[in-house]
Order: sequence, then C-alpha cells, then structure tokens
Amino acid sequence: MNQLRTFITALLVIGLPHVLAAATPNVIIIFADDLGYGDLGCYGSPVIRTPNLDRMASEGLRFTDFYSAAEVCTPSRAALLTGRLPIRNGMCGDRRVLFANSEGGLPPAEVTIAEALRAKGYATMHIGKWHLGIHEGSRPLDQGFEHSFGLPYSNDMDARLGLPKGSSGSPNPPADGWNVALLRDGEVVEQPAVQTTLTKRYTEEAVKFIRDKKNGPFFLYMPHTFPHVPMFASPAFKGKSRAGIYGDAVEELDWSVGQVMETLRKEDLAENTLVFFTSDNGPWLIMGDQGGSAGLLKDGKGSTWEGGMRVPGIAWMPGRIRPGVTQQLASTMDLLPTALGLAQAELPKTTLDGTDLAPLLFESKSLPSRPYFYYRGDQLFACRVGEWKAHFKTQTGYGQPKADVHEPALLYHLGRDPSEKRDVAADHPDVLSKIQQAVKEHQAGVVPGVPQLK
Amino acid sequence: MNQLRTFITALLVIGLPHVLAAATPNVIIIFADDLGYGDLGCYGSPVIRTPNLDRMASEGLRFTDFYSAAEVCTPSRAALLTGRLPIRNGMCGDRRVLFANSEGGLPPAEVTIAEALRAKGYATMHIGKWHLGIHEGSRPLDQGFEHSFGLPYSNDMDARLGLPKGSSGSPNPPADGWNVALLRDGEVVEQPAVQTTLTKRYTEEAVKFIRDKKNGPFFLYMPHTFPHVPMFASPAFKGKSRAGIYGDAVEELDWSVGQVMETLRKEDLAENTLVFFTSDNGPWLIMGDQGGSAGLLKDGKGSTWEGGMRVPGIAWMPGRIRPGVTQQLASTMDLLPTALGLAQAELPKTTLDGTDLAPLLFESKSLPSRPYFYYRGDQLFACRVGEWKAHFKTQTGYGQPKADVHEPALLYHLGRDPSEKRDVAADHPDVLSKIQQAVKEHQAGVVPGVPQLK
Repeated sequence: MNQLRTFITALLVIGLPHVLAAATPNVIIIFADDLGYGDLGCYGSPVIRTPNLDRMASEGLRFTDFYSAAEVCTPSRAALLTGRLPIRNGMCGDRRVLFANSEGGLPPAEVTIAEALRAKGYATMHIGKWHLGIHEGSRPLDQGFEHSFGLPYSNDMDARLGLPKGSSGSPNPPADGWNVALLRDGEVVEQPAVQTTLTKRYTEEAVKFIRDKKNGPFFLYMPHTFPHVPMFASPAFKGKSRAGIYGDAVEELDWSVGQVMETLRKEDLAENTLVFFTSDNGPWLIMGDQGGSAGLLKDGKGSTWEGGMRVPGIAWMPGRIRPGVTQQLASTMDLLPTALGLAQAELPKTTLDGTDLAPLLFESKSLPSRPYFYYRGDQLFACRVGEWKAHFKTQTGYGQPKADVHEPALLYHLGRDPSEKRDVAADHPDVLSKIQQAVKEHQAGVVPGVPQLK
Repeated sequence: MNQLRTFITALLVIGLPHVLAAATPNVIIIFADDLGYGDLGCYGSPVIRTPNLDRMASEGLRFTDFYSAAEVCTPSRAALLTGRLPIRNGMCGDRRVLFANSEGGLPPAEVTIAEALRAKGYATMHIGKWHLGIHEGSRPLDQGFEHSFGLPYSNDMDARLGLPKGSSGSPNPPADGWNVALLRDGEVVEQPAVQTTLTKRYTEEAVKFIRDKKNGPFFLYMPHTFPHVPMFASPAFKGKSRAGIYGDAVEELDWSVGQVMETLRKEDLAENTLVFFTSDNGPWLIMGDQGGSAGLLKDGKGSTWEGGMRVPGIAWMPGRIRPGVTQQLASTMDLLPTALGLAQAELPKTTLDGTDLAPLLFESKSLPSRPYFYYRGDQLFACRVGEWKAHFKTQTGYGQPKADVHEPALLYHLGRDPSEKRDVAADHPDVLSKIQQAVKEHQAGVVPGVPQLK
C-alpha cells in the first residue's frame, strides 16, 4: 500500500505533467488543390492508386458528405482557415479568386486557426500554396504562421501578366518554367519555381517540421500546389499512373501523405496528432485529361452542383478516432472549431459557420443537424437541409456565362439521387418551404465583409 | 535428429494427407443482380453503407476493371457459369434475356462450373435467381447442381403473362405479391414468392449449406434476386438507408455477404474458401430512384459503355490472397478456369474466353494481356485492348431504339478518360488498327451457338 502511494505520488509529481503535456494534440491539415470527389481509390477512382490515403481512410474516419466552403480556390481557403463563409470575411466578389495583381487579401482582423493555436503555444507552419493575399496583413506570416514555404498563389499565375497564363488541357504535361515564385518566410527563393519537384520539396519540409517540433504542440497547414494545372510530377512518378500526368500528380500527393503519416508513426506522434485531408473544390473538368473526376457527382470546380463543392474528407488519429465511414454532413469550416477544441483554445468572438467535430470524431456521436449553404462568389445559389438540396440558381463550372435562375427552385434528394438527376420540387412544396425558411434566417444574419476580390 | 525424422515421418503418414485434404478449396460465387459499379462503399457510393463488402475488399483483392460478360442478365449468367461468351453458347439473340414463356435455355452440352466441380467430388448448390432456362436440360439440377433454392427467372416476371409485369421507378417500394414462384430442387414451394424476406432466406440457406458441407469441398453459387426491380427488403432493412428502397436492398445484400463470411470464419473455412463477389451487369438507370449508380462510368445496364458491363469485383481468401486493389482487367468468364484450377479439375474441351486468375490472386503476378470484347446480344459493339476502347456501335441502356454505327470507330483511353467523354480516334489511327486486327482475329474464331433467346 505504501509502495502504491509512493508510486501514485511519483506519477503526480513527475509523470502526470508529462502525460498532460503530451496530451495537447498536434494538428495537420493537408489540402489538395482541385482534387475531385472521385479521384482517390477509397472514393472509387479506378485509375489513380492512392494506397496511403486509402490506408488513412481505413484507419480513420472517411466522410461521404464533406464540403469545401466554396467552388473555387481563394474563398475556399479563406473559409477553411477562419471557419467562416467567404461572404462574411469578404473573400469573394466579382473576380472569383485573387490574381497576381489583386490588391485585396484576407483581412488582418480575421482570426485564423494558426493565430488561435499560436496563441496557445503551438508552433505553426504553412507549406504549399497560399492564395489569400500577397500584401501586408494578409500574408502567411501576418496570419499566424511562424514559418511559410511555398507559392503565393496558383501555379498558373504570373505577376508580369496579372492574369493566369492559361493552361493546356492536353494529355501531355506542359514544360516546367512558369513564372510563379517560390517563397520562404515571405522572401523569394526561386523564380520561376521548379514545379516538377514541388510536391517532393513540400514533403521534405513537412517531415523536417514535424521532427523539429516533435515535442509539440504544432500546427501544420499543408495546402498542396497540385493537382492544379499546369500539372507536374517528380521523375519517380511521371508517366507511372494510367491516368496520365493528372494521375501521376495525385499519386505523388498520395506518397506525400504517406510520408507525413510515416513520420508521425516513427516519432510516436500518430496517436496525438489529428490529420485531416481534404480538397479546396471539385475537379477542373474543362481541363480534359488534366482535370480530375467528381465520381458520381454532377459537375465540378466553379459550380454549386455537388461535384463543385463536395470533396474527399478523411480524419485520422489512430487510437482516438474509431475507423469507419460517416454519412454526416461536415465542411472545411468545421476544422477551426475542431482544432481549437483540441487545443482548448477560445473561439474567436465572431460569427462562425463551422462546428466542433469532436463528438463525431472521438465519440461516434451525431452532430447537430444544420443547413448547408452553397455560395458562388457572393451569391447564395443553393441550400441543403438534411438530404434535400434546393437550387435557386445554377451555373456550370466555367463554361456557362450567366446563371440560370430557378423559380421555383430545383429540388433534389441527395440520398436517393446523389447525382442530382431528378428534380422533384413539384412533389415536395413543404420541403422547399422549409429550405426557403432556413435561407431567410441565414441571410438575415449575414453581414457581408468588405469585398477583397476586386 | 532422430526425433526430427520421426516427426517428419509422422507428418507424412498422418499429417500431410490431412493437410492435402483440407487444401482442396471451396468456392463461393456471390452474384448481385443489376448492382452498379458505384453502389458499394468501397467503390465510392456515398449513400449505401456496405461495411461487410468493404471489409471483404480491404481483406481481399478489389478489382477496378472487372467485367461482366454481357450488359443484361441471362447472357451474363450463362457466361459466368461456362467461362464462354454468350455468342458461343447461344445465350443471346433478338430477345435480350429469357422470359417466362421462352423455350430456350442453357444447352445441356455446355459445361458449367458446377458440373466440373461436382465431377471432382464437390457438393454443389445454387441459391437465388437462375434465369438460364426452365426446361429440361437447362435447369439447375440439369447443370451440375445437387441442390437449388430460388427463383426460375427475374422477380418481375410472370408465367401467366409471358412478359415481365413491368416495374415502377417510383421511390416507394411496390407491394409484395408478384407472381414469380420460389422453387426448391425444381419444385414450387411458394407462389407468389414472398420477396420481402428472400434475401434473408437465401442467406439462411447459404449458412446451412456451408455448415452441412464444412468437411468440403463445396461450391456455392449464390446469384441474389436483388437489387433487381421490383425492390424489397426485410423489415430490419426497409427504410434504413438514405438511398431509399434500392439502398435498403443493397444494405441487406451486404449483410448477407457478412453472414457468409462470418460463417466461414466460425467454421474455420475462411482460409480454404475462395469467395468472389460481383454483379451481372450495370445499374438499371431508367428505374430512377430504384436504379443504382455506375459511379463515374458512362451509362448502365443494357449498354456497352463502361457502366453497362464494368462491375464491382472482389476476391477474398484470407491468408491466400494478398489484400490490395488491382487495375488488371478480368471478367466473370475467368471464374470457371479459376475455380477449376483450385479444384485441380480439367478444363472443358471447348473454347473458353476466360483465364485462370490464380497468378494474380495468389502470387500478385500480372495476367497475360488480352483484348476484351463487348457484345450486345449477338453483335460485337466494342473492343478494349490495354487502356484503349473502340466502339463500333453504341446504344444507350434501354432508351435508344436503334444502335448508332460509328465509322470510323470511337476511341477512348480508359485510364485518362474513364468516363468515356473524349473521343480521340482521329489522333490515334494506329491504335484503332490494332484493335480492329484483334476483332478480326476474334471473329474468325467464333462459332455462334444455336440461338436460345427467341
């Protein structure tokens, strides 16, 4: 008995603080660019091999109904980092995304996951594409990241031209040597960035960061450059997939995820690190062989049909997250409250559009039911309540010049008709009313931010 | 040393024959009806929960490019059981399938998997839908099965009417009480068959058969009635999926597969039983909410676009088959040579269209490259060589009255363009020539069987 007392005392004095310190979890968000709902093996791709993401899915929780907050890049990223709809933080407007000559950016007043976690003592790092502004106040180091390594915006953009250089939809990879710069902590270290080895170098940076910060806690935000066009892959991956250069790029991305997971395992951090993998929007279908696939979902990037905004979503934290598949609705905007919850950080004093996923992730509980709002720029195009989705406006990816306005709205049951083929609005006026009510309540509470994407 | 010698001698005298006896593997083929490529969780369905098939896939080998031999029911089944194209065994013609008033059936001269395995001492049983003829010579007990329990043809067919009664595409399940009969060993035991509990009863029969024959070897052919319309599910499953009655029926089917696997595990037979799961053709898309999904593949049942003939394919034999995903092309016609290979049975002395999958299943080796021929009835519509597929004729599922003839043929790269969106025939005349050569060689060797589907 005395021995037991001594043991417990020793545990309290020496052991417990150590256990508590170890219990502050790390957070890693891996964010693919333009990866479609159907582009991973575990989401049914027959042509792209993704054994590492498949393993992550089988050891973790795979979401069938995970959404990006926007159908294009910049607003989607802003929403993920702030937990807020782009309409609120101003990261949407007439221009769909930030360009190399844009003056706007993520407003300094917005609180990012990085800022909130850094305030709790987390080491924070951004590796990959930023695309939330290149001017003071909006850059990675202004928005909570201690370190940053990557591109300021999309890999097809060129500061000399203002606009993207444009991309080829040909099955052959374009030549490397575009004009985008590679930055470290805000300084240009390479221009043009050698894109062929970008994924490899991002991965090396990530592995180094995890090892350096293994005593934790740390937050790693890793928004990859690929599979956005122009598409590149390292020599070890180029020409290896059956899906052409798009498949090569995704298979290298999968390798990268595997390296991150392997490092966490080796450093004994896997059970104390939440890793979340997702994509910023659907596949860029007009790119042909260099665009991906939304699987059975309709349309892709740029559209508020499901294929534009529903994306792969996988949460991994072995021993903490029970393996499985969930059909519950969640979105990138839930990652801020989830990460802050894990860190026991206070939520920003502002309107958030996400919810803490902890009950679902760690206790297999249901999340509260909530509507989902599909914006295209600053316009609300559609709303989902339960299985039902109403479209008030529709516009295909990039091909349709003007939106179709639907009065009455189109109505789809996403359970029985996940491909949005059969409008059943006429049979369910009650459902439409309920959705319209949800939209009315939502819109009454939205204070639009100052538009940044001019 | 002496002890070792004694041990080895004992092993040879007592142990080895026992090991050899145990090593004659059992074979189970589970065949869904009208299940689409995109209808299982492990093939990317967001709306149907299939944890048992997902587990089978993660413990076994999942095929991305597995084909049924036909785009509709009867010819597909004939091909699976004989390892031969329907054009050779006559199980194709003007009428697409056998009807309740058809006179034809699987010719007695055809050698089925059941006949070949029974000759090697296997216990053989058919549980489920037959649809290969109701007249003498073509019935289950005439074609190698010692026992049979199930329906003579599709669950929407009615002998009083000759033709199918027709099916409703409504999201609400139809009333039970169609006129199809349930037969045991050729005798009617229930008419109309109570379809609501069919999957459950098939499963009970299967579990009983496995237990009764656990000393093996046995062959169980289990062609389920569902998810063919009209759609039914047991009370335990009805209304439980988000995908309506179609999802309910598939989730019950998944449960059934789980029961079979569980029985094999409990009886210590799992490592000595090859289980293969697949479907007879793509989803019946014109059935709306009661049709399934081909995922990212084009079209469905009745068509030679990929969605009509590429189906889920999962091989399971824990400890023997290395878990993984394979992109190698295979088909239901490979199951006869594979099953006979396991049983060390001689192949039938006739032209076979399948190949033994053993090198792939048990040694992770590549199969020999071979063309794949897509027939619609007795017409060759398309041919695949490697990643390339040429369409000489196309016709959508059931909606298009007459085939479009393509001269020159359409050409798709199934790796870069799995959804068959971009015809690239103009860019690859050399590939088209190669495919045309393969077709020429194939057609020169085909001796059409006597048409049975009049």
